[in-house]
Amino acid sequence: MKAYEIQQFGIDNLTLVERDEPKVNPTEVLVKFRAASLNYRDLMIVRGTYNPRLKMPAVPLSDGAGEIVTVGDAVTKWKVGDRVMPIFAQHWIYGDSTEQTRRSSLGGGAQTDGVLREFGSFDQEGLVRVPDHLSFEEAATLPCAALTAWHALAVSGKIKAGDDVLTLGTGGVSIFALQFAKIFGARVISTTGNDEKIEKLHGLGADDVINYRSREDWDMAVHELTDKKGVDHVVEVGGSGTLAKSIAAVRMGGHVAMIGALTGAGNFDPVSVFMKSVRLQGIFTGPRTMFEDMLKAIDVSKLEPVIDTVFDFANARDAIKYMESGAHFGKVVIKI
Amino acid sequence: MKAYEIQQFGIDNLTLVERDEPKVNPTEVLVKFRAASLNYRDLMIVRGTYNPRLKMPAVPLSDGAGEIVTVGDAVTKWKVGDRVMPIFAQHWIYGDSTEQTRRSSLGGGAQTDGVLREFGSFDQEGLVRVPDHLSFEEAATLPCAALTAWHALAVSGKIKAGDDVLTLGTGGVSIFALQFAKIFGARVISTTGNDEKIEKLHGLGADDVINYRSREDWDMAVHELTDKKGVDHVVEVGGSGTLAKSIAAVRMGGHVAMIGALTGAGNFDPVSVFMKSVRLQGIFTGPRTMFEDMLKAIDVSKLEPVIDTVFDFANARDAIKYMESGAHFGKVVIKI
Amino acid sequence: MKAYEIQQFGIDNLTLVERDEPKVNPTEVLVKFRAASLNYRDLMIVRGTYNPRLKMPAVPLSDGAGEIVTVGDAVTKWKVGDRVMPIFAQHWIYGDSTEQTRRSSLGGGAQTDGVLREFGSFDQEGLVRVPDHLSFEEAATLPCAALTAWHALAVSGKIKAGDDVLTLGTGGVSIFALQFAKIFGARVISTTGNDEKIEKLHGLGADDVINYRSREDWDMAVHELTDKKGVDHVVEVGGSGTLAKSIAAVRMGGHVAMIGALTGAGNFDPVSVFMKSVRLQGIFTGPRTMFEDMLKAIDVSKLEPVIDTVFDFANARDAIKYMESGAHFGKVVIKI
Amino acid sequence: MKAYEIQQFGIDNLTLVERDEPKVNPTEVLVKFRAASLNYRDLMIVRGTYNPRLKMPAVPLSDGAGEIVTVGDAVTKWKVGDRVMPIFAQHWIYGDSTEQTRRSSLGGGAQTDGVLREFGSFDQEGLVRVPDHLSFEEAATLPCAALTAWHALAVSGKIKAGDDVLTLGTGGVSIFALQFAKIFGARVISTTGNDEKIEKLHGLGADDVINYRSREDWDMAVHELTDKKGVDHVVEVGGSGTLAKSIAAVRMGGHVAMIGALTGAGNFDPVSVFMKSVRLQGIFTGPRTMFEDMLKAIDVSKLEPVIDTVFDFANARDAIKYMESGAHFGKVVIKI
Repeated sequence: MKAYEIQQFGIDNLTLVERDEPKVNPTEVLVKFRAASLNYRDLMIVRGTYNPRLKMPAVPLSDGAGEIVTVGDAVTKWKVGDRVMPIFAQHWIYGDSTEQTRRSSLGGGAQTDGVLREFGSFDQEGLVRVPDHLSFEEAATLPCAALTAWHALAVSGKIKAGDDVLTLGTGGVSIFALQFAKIFGARVISTTGNDEKIEKLHGLGADDVINYRSREDWDMAVHELTDKKGVDHVVEVGGSGTLAKSIAAVRMGGHVAMIGALTGAGNFDPVSVFMKSVRLQGIFTGPRTMFEDMLKAIDVSKLEPVIDTVFDFANARDAIKYMESGAHFGKVVIKI
Repeated sequence: MKAYEIQQFGIDNLTLVERDEPKVNPTEVLVKFRAASLNYRDLMIVRGTYNPRLKMPAVPLSDGAGEIVTVGDAVTKWKVGDRVMPIFAQHWIYGDSTEQTRRSSLGGGAQTDGVLREFGSFDQEGLVRVPDHLSFEEAATLPCAALTAWHALAVSGKIKAGDDVLTLGTGGVSIFALQFAKIFGARVISTTGNDEKIEKLHGLGADDVINYRSREDWDMAVHELTDKKGVDHVVEVGGSGTLAKSIAAVRMGGHVAMIGALTGAGNFDPVSVFMKSVRLQGIFTGPRTMFEDMLKAIDVSKLEPVIDTVFDFANARDAIKYMESGAHFGKVVIKI
Repeated sequence: MKAYEIQQFGIDNLTLVERDEPKVNPTEVLVKFRAASLNYRDLMIVRGTYNPRLKMPAVPLSDGAGEIVTVGDAVTKWKVGDRVMPIFAQHWIYGDSTEQTRRSSLGGGAQTDGVLREFGSFDQEGLVRVPDHLSFEEAATLPCAALTAWHALAVSGKIKAGDDVLTLGTGGVSIFALQFAKIFGARVISTTGNDEKIEKLHGLGADDVINYRSREDWDMAVHELTDKKGVDHVVEVGGSGTLAKSIAAVRMGGHVAMIGALTGAGNFDPVSVFMKSVRLQGIFTGPRTMFEDMLKAIDVSKLEPVIDTVFDFANARDAIKYMESGAHFGKVVIKI
Repeated sequence: MKAYEIQQFGIDNLTLVERDEPKVNPTEVLVKFRAASLNYRDLMIVRGTYNPRLKMPAVPLSDGAGEIVTVGDAVTKWKVGDRVMPIFAQHWIYGDSTEQTRRSSLGGGAQTDGVLREFGSFDQEGLVRVPDHLSFEEAATLPCAALTAWHALAVSGKIKAGDDVLTLGTGGVSIFALQFAKIFGARVISTTGNDEKIEKLHGLGADDVINYRSREDWDMAVHELTDKKGVDHVVEVGGSGTLAKSIAAVRMGGHVAMIGALTGAGNFDPVSVFMKSVRLQGIFTGPRTMFEDMLKAIDVSKLEPVIDTVFDFANARDAIKYMESGAHFGKVVIKI
């Protein structure tokens, strides 16, 4: 089978190789991948900034969807033909994450090859079912980005109808956060640096959109839009560049879900967390039980993931470079 | 000013009288009522089955909306012209209800005249603002029925997108519960005894509707519609007649919000609560803070209350009789 | 090995037999039992009132503790010599119970032999570790009774210091509830029908004790002890005989954890649940994750389970008859 | 009456003056103060680092206790002779704090004189009752420090028996946090820089104590004491100097309650919050309802606040200087 390997860091060094098909243990199934999607983490892994000690060769990418083509003898949950997604951290079934569940993350974790390949074998407990109304391309966008957004709002934020939510930019997590917030009946303020994306954001349900280039003090713009109170929830994906303003934009006692792996404190002063009684909650995907809850919500609402571009398997490197450019609106997908 | 008084029990005994306008203390405002709405509790109060020791004469009805025409000297929160609703229990501002907050319920409680009159004076803390997109008739439906449904699902149920919700019949609370559940992205199964109402329920968003006359074992029908699991939440308004089936219809570990004042255990065996690990939660409107949260949700979603019929003030007795007939779909309103 | 079997219902029909030692699959361990404890459920199972269609022969009792003597090849979590307790429902690891987890209950469930035998084999996921400060006899009291009490107060009740808790009688669940409530800094009111037990209850930390024989209106006695408010939590184990009074004894908006399998509504009117905004929560042991949390609390507090009497294995029938008599204070244990 | 005034910043500039007794409005009571206690905030206010634009003259100190000597005509909740404490933020009765409730903080807020004076008048809603077992000196320690610790653990942390808690140093909040954690049945690891305080901390119930001078890597010491997992909760009072280590010491998915007004990020990298899925929660006292819950817990447990030294009213400046020295263990109190 074909697979992409990181043999040395750098997008251009990503290498298409021929590998044996994975073995299938009695409690495992073999998945024929049909699509994968990109997260910012993948870009960092390929470049070598996420885990400089990555054990090579490694197959990158955590998020994929495909079809079960073989089931082990002891498998009770699945049958051939089932459409599935592997969960991001293969051993994270329920509860809080631990060092151990972290190490089971696909595509860059300590143990486990990612999904940018034709076949993968997975324990039957490490998969969830693709909702009927979604294509493989759409399903491939869910394991990391959608679950992170769901975790931030539905679980950490206990979001309810009428809440005010702020999303930043048009990356995968932010777009899912916008969509989930609207499904829950919340009011959404989104930001973008590009006027052409404003209409698209409104089209997805954003109640207000702020261009953070024309309003560098976008935190103040948020206060103007919320009777000077600030929002209840911020889905903070910008890291050190935006954290101080996100805390300025949230209401006293509000919730900032912090996502992203960029380092450096920027101009963030942690005393602001104290002075405003803010809850700053680090969010990093979620367990399988949470994924299953999210899939029920996606099924009932018939949510359609927003895909910017679908690249062919042969052009996987171009897909990663496109993601690097930051021009995307929603998810970048690779067909396998 | 004109007011209806209970001077003796019985719908036909409800008497239209002339009264002095209420006095306005420094922390109070005077509200000119423009509409009121009916709840089942009002029917019981007028008949004498809710509180046989009701102190007469008493002005019935708890739910109204109107305009502020006078403000006391010490009032800081309101101005003349503000559109408001009195809260159901005038002293229930936050937290759990107590004997004391119960006694402050409008229109049948121990202390306080109801809203079926032209003017009423209220402490400035005992009012909430009418959302801009609602008429007085629509707003008058909210204080008891809508807040009860909100309390059941948004607060007690902590409902989230993808949850399965069961509503019973087409009374005010059930219709609001259906609407709120859809705003939160839940899936709703509704019941009705009348085939003609099925389309209306679908029109409001019900995903499935069961006619409980053709399916007397509607609890089993619910299991068929939920992969044999049962629903996550039941908004139980039927009392002793339906409680046993509601508990049969909920999933193991599920939530039954219990609303309504009909007495008698029916065929309900409390051991079923234990055997299925059910949470049976009594729900009785809510405090002002909860009302304000609900109003934010109504504002963001532009929810439109479902009004069956609007009666003139002169025909208030007919309105109550119509409610008694059980033919309504949504709320019965009286214009004042 | 020796084992007790239900071959036909009735305490005197319980039969001591010789059986083969259980086989040990690769993911299983073999436990040599050292002690077991009795719950009211066991009495009902042996009599035939819990599950009249029990598949015989069946080994009764759910709660035991012992030592691992053999580990399967694939076992990673345990080693020979580890002191363990099997969890009540072998497949209930996390989250809510389901029909499937219920069927995995030991000693009377559909599938699984109980612990009144010398050896048992268990999947490595179906065990928890005995705290260092507990003997096997003490540990054997925990799986059902202690976990039920913990679930009722720590999980369902989210009990906090200063809360008022009511416990009923001196059975195993009630005594554990009293002990846990005191560990959390709550105030406890206990009841008993026997003046001689009053001092024992105070000795365990009960702040007030009511003799329900001299105060048949013990619900009123509870109000007298709580400034006429009622308690925050009732651990209701009495079933139809006491439920109405438990609801009368809880405060408006309070929590009644309902435990026990006695049938019949008694004089309980479900409308009381609505009128007092009570939360009536069915409680039935808990998952392994909850057991592990409880064990941490037991370890930190060095809680010592209250054992009434320890019977020899040969006298297991006498132990069950003693339990039937209702004279016990705390747990009845059988040494194996 | 006598009162201390800030007329210009600096401890030595604090001036004892003669003032008129406060007027008492109809809904107010007059309190004769008997004791006050010091918080770090008071030191900053007197020095001018907390609020450089403080409107002078201002009476400092937020925390006091005394006796009601006069009640206004409309007062229903209190009578002469009642022993009371004013709440920290006079308008914060329930729910989250807001800009408005913040401005009602005593002794340095925008509006309201503090308690370092003989008499003060307060709205009847702005007081809570002193538990019977506490002296005025003990009660004076509660409004800010104890409530902050309670908020951090009981409310934000939802602490339960068996949880691991880390407290830092021997200031007022940290000692209350240690005491509350033990009342809830938690395990406590405390730190101090002074070997002589180790025994005192054990005497209050600390299970382990780390000297952060001999173990500069005290975060690693915490991991050694928790099976390499880290603690569930950190009560972080050290600000920029300790925040990075507190996050290192908490378990993945754990809770850091952040208290204190020192500025500057130190070596704290906010990405650590993301990488460990930490919840960083700013805590700033709490509303009256929370205070009342805490008082119930203090009453049931008969908690005794730890007072380091009681100074006479005439020596208030010395008390503040002693607090500045950092030598105290628990609270510094001024008798009035």
